[in-house]
Amino acid sequence: MAKKQKVQRPKAQTPKGFRDYFGAEVAQRTDMLRTIAGVYHRYGFEALESSAVETVEALGKFLPDVDRPNEGVFAWQEEDEKGDGDWLALRYDLTAPLARVYAQHRNDLPTPYRRFAMGPVWRNEKPGPGRFRQFYQCDADTVGSGSVAADAEICAMLCDTLEAVGIERGDYVVRINNRKVLNGVLEAVFNWFNVIDLDHDDAETQRIKKEKLASDGSDGQAEISANILRTIDKYDKVGEQGVRELLMGGRKDSSGAFIDGVGLNRRQADLVIAFVTSKNDSNDETLTQLRYAIGESTVGEAGVDELQTMADLLAAGGYGPDRIVIDPSVVRGLGYYTGPVFEAELTFEIHDEKGRARSFGSVAGGGRYDDLVKRFTGQEVPATGISIGVDRLLAALHMKGRLTSDTTGPVVVTVMDRDRMADYQGIVSELRQAGIRSEVYLGNPKNFGNQLKYADQRNSPIAIIQGGDELAAGTLQIKDLILGAKIAQTATHEEWKDRPSQFEIPRADLVTRIKTLLDEQAK
Amino acid sequence: MAKKQKVQRPKAQTPKGFRDYFGAEVAQRTDMLRTIAGVYHRYGFEALESSAVETVEALGKFLPDVDRPNEGVFAWQEEDEKGDGDWLALRYDLTAPLARVYAQHRNDLPTPYRRFAMGPVWRNEKPGPGRFRQFYQCDADTVGSGSVAADAEICAMLCDTLEAVGIERGDYVVRINNRKVLNGVLEAVFNWFNVIDLDHDDAETQRIKKEKLASDGSDGQAEISANILRTIDKYDKVGEQGVRELLMGGRKDSSGAFIDGVGLNRRQADLVIAFVTSKNDSNDETLTQLRYAIGESTVGEAGVDELQTMADLLAAGGYGPDRIVIDPSVVRGLGYYTGPVFEAELTFEIHDEKGRARSFGSVAGGGRYDDLVKRFTGQEVPATGISIGVDRLLAALHMKGRLTSDTTGPVVVTVMDRDRMADYQGIVSELRQAGIRSEVYLGNPKNFGNQLKYADQRNSPIAIIQGGDELAAGTLQIKDLILGAKIAQTATHEEWKDRPSQFEIPRADLVTRIKTLLDEQAK
Repeated sequence: MAKKQKVQRPKAQTPKGFRDYFGAEVAQRTDMLRTIAGVYHRYGFEALESSAVETVEALGKFLPDVDRPNEGVFAWQEEDEKGDGDWLALRYDLTAPLARVYAQHRNDLPTPYRRFAMGPVWRNEKPGPGRFRQFYQCDADTVGSGSVAADAEICAMLCDTLEAVGIERGDYVVRINNRKVLNGVLEAVFNWFNVIDLDHDDAETQRIKKEKLASDGSDGQAEISANILRTIDKYDKVGEQGVRELLMGGRKDSSGAFIDGVGLNRRQADLVIAFVTSKNDSNDETLTQLRYAIGESTVGEAGVDELQTMADLLAAGGYGPDRIVIDPSVVRGLGYYTGPVFEAELTFEIHDEKGRARSFGSVAGGGRYDDLVKRFTGQEVPATGISIGVDRLLAALHMKGRLTSDTTGPVVVTVMDRDRMADYQGIVSELRQAGIRSEVYLGNPKNFGNQLKYADQRNSPIAIIQGGDELAAGTLQIKDLILGAKIAQTATHEEWKDRPSQFEIPRADLVTRIKTLLDEQAK
Repeated sequence: MAKKQKVQRPKAQTPKGFRDYFGAEVAQRTDMLRTIAGVYHRYGFEALESSAVETVEALGKFLPDVDRPNEGVFAWQEEDEKGDGDWLALRYDLTAPLARVYAQHRNDLPTPYRRFAMGPVWRNEKPGPGRFRQFYQCDADTVGSGSVAADAEICAMLCDTLEAVGIERGDYVVRINNRKVLNGVLEAVFNWFNVIDLDHDDAETQRIKKEKLASDGSDGQAEISANILRTIDKYDKVGEQGVRELLMGGRKDSSGAFIDGVGLNRRQADLVIAFVTSKNDSNDETLTQLRYAIGESTVGEAGVDELQTMADLLAAGGYGPDRIVIDPSVVRGLGYYTGPVFEAELTFEIHDEKGRARSFGSVAGGGRYDDLVKRFTGQEVPATGISIGVDRLLAALHMKGRLTSDTTGPVVVTVMDRDRMADYQGIVSELRQAGIRSEVYLGNPKNFGNQLKYADQRNSPIAIIQGGDELAAGTLQIKDLILGAKIAQTATHEEWKDRPSQFEIPRADLVTRIKTLLDEQAK
């Protein structure tokens, strides 16, 4: 005999940030994906399933919120003889693969190409509580249409989808915005007659400002733009007056420290403030205020026009401001959006871990991205789409108690005599052929109590028992486990006297009696 | 302006060995997975979805046909500060993750634990024609039951599954074998009274053989065993007499060269030959011959007994030798099988690339593996299961013309006046609310011919047209594209005179008329 060695056993653990999904969780997601696919399909979208693995080159650097290439993805190098194989990676979303697919197959695909895709994506991020490195997305995109009608349609479909999976009207809102609007506001801010304060700047100041504007070019403007954007983000915290002060000369914060301002004049600040405060219950009023905020900017005008057209198209289709809201605060993290952006928010309240009420928040987002396919082909291909975070949506439905998938276990046929396994298999065969979920207990049958414990653990509705006596009599014992559990809970057995939880039936009546009992239980 | 640089564009290509699936292909697979899940569920199995990524440590070295660790998987090292992060890999099958899941969650799971899992797996192999590095598997396993009834049930379920997805009875056979039988035959071969030929070996030869047998130990036997297995594999090529010669003294091959034999005596060769030729139309006769081939081997007897019990249980459930065949040639590549092994083969003929007829072959396989969970826990946990190769099964159904998923495109509403987009969206809104798949043409509407070409490319059944005249008259033009295509194919238009492919309907009748037309087309 060899000397006893210490056995190094592998750890039975998912890698950090990954998890397993069991039974009903899987069924609920499958059901939801099927429902969503049904809506997408009805809207004329075609399924696409690309592989989980792409070349790093094809995926590009579009990972949300991450500037560095390859950061945030799971990547590895292909082995080849020379050691310079391609770098491969798991897809981090479903949009980058779509751009690759469209560029690769564009001659065989219709234009516009409407496709939907659903499946896991992977992010190589630091895992945290409730933050997983593999999760499901469910996307629909229209590639090859520059029409804002395509964007509007996606928003309408998003409403239909949310309602189809069980989010009631009133419990969600689709907020829309347009990247061009904010760009237009910034353009207006840098327009010379806004930079120069004709009422207050003297001739010399005007000359200096004009020169500075010309020499600064885009670099100087980029820095000011970034400062403006940072200031806008503080609106929720410091309010309109606070933002105005920060945009202009600066202000004292709550600790008494002085925060430098961006240095805009009153006219410039007015535009930004108009933008920040534009959101209104009426989409029309929001649009009016945005038109003021963009001044003479052409790109800004295009953005507001697009928002107007989207809102009009949607309203004409019955998607009014109770569901579609123009909201200039919708930003969406991705740098690749070029026009309309949208976000679906669930508005019902939940309580966070500290018991504070807050709205559930975003479950889907998307927008127009006209440059993704261009990376491959050099030609600009307009595209727009939406991505639904399936796991978040499932969590929301779970909180609202609207997940109704059946968690009932199988009918369990117990084993009283292990030599009569064929008989017991015959019983489940009959039941299964009648479409009834059922199984023979396949553990060690010695301890009958373990068999009933198993049935309990499986959430079985019925156990079937046939010992020697029943065999001789041509009968079966039927144990109504749901009634049994109820009896166990009630203090008095009186009320259950007429419905005993165990009874005997003729073997020949198996299927009809079990069907009847299951129907009764389901009531 | 910066100097014009040469733009390096990424290649729009899937990595080698990966592919994209479009439209009907995706729908067909989704449908099939749903059907299979339905059967598995009816049998009492619960869904499990583990992540695509596992630690290399947890996956182990069980990759089929590959002896070297990490060979054949896509693996990478986790980044951490010390540079010694875990190695992670994409799962190469669904069984290794199951073993990890069961070991990790065993206190919360029922025993036996019946689970099914479906999803892609990845193999880092050299891609070839029709050989992909990502493909779907669809598994069902029973963990924690050592009963051969569990194996039998899996085989019955496999039959039901194949029939549920559209493989007719008679077009498939589930072949079963047991690893213990061949082990038993080898044990019998090395049994001293088989090694020693009592009729022919003289006393001195007997003494030498006994000594050699004692000193050889398992190493010598392992080499002879390997030679026997190699010889068995030649049965299809050289036939019974050829195998007999190769097992004993050797033989001349077709080129005249002499091939050395394994060196067995007649009695030993008899056992192996009995095993090799045991397959029979009657499972009973196969079992009788196997009982001879295993001699006095205890493990062999256990194997034959298990096969017998499986066949009996299955026959009692109606799964007779027309569907379940004991076939000792079923080997299954995986080293981890410990008892029963099974394989589903489609028996109908297809023609290979050279036009030769051959049977379609294996679409599913599995068996009993009692040691996989032990790797983690140290405790042996009996388990058995099946894996269906979904993509191969889809290919088979495709060849048989039994894939019936709907490839009809959406009703296309054309755009005659781009300022009336809201009207056109209103038309599809109505249709979609009635459950009719439809869309507005979202490409550039300038060229009307392109719109009809698009409808054609989408395989649309109907195009709807509303120009200024129809708007004024409160009507719509309906183009029956399926009838139109038929007319285009027929030489004479006479027979279609009464059913024009384009006609006008009142706008108010939209939904009812389109529904009627779609129903007619479906006939």
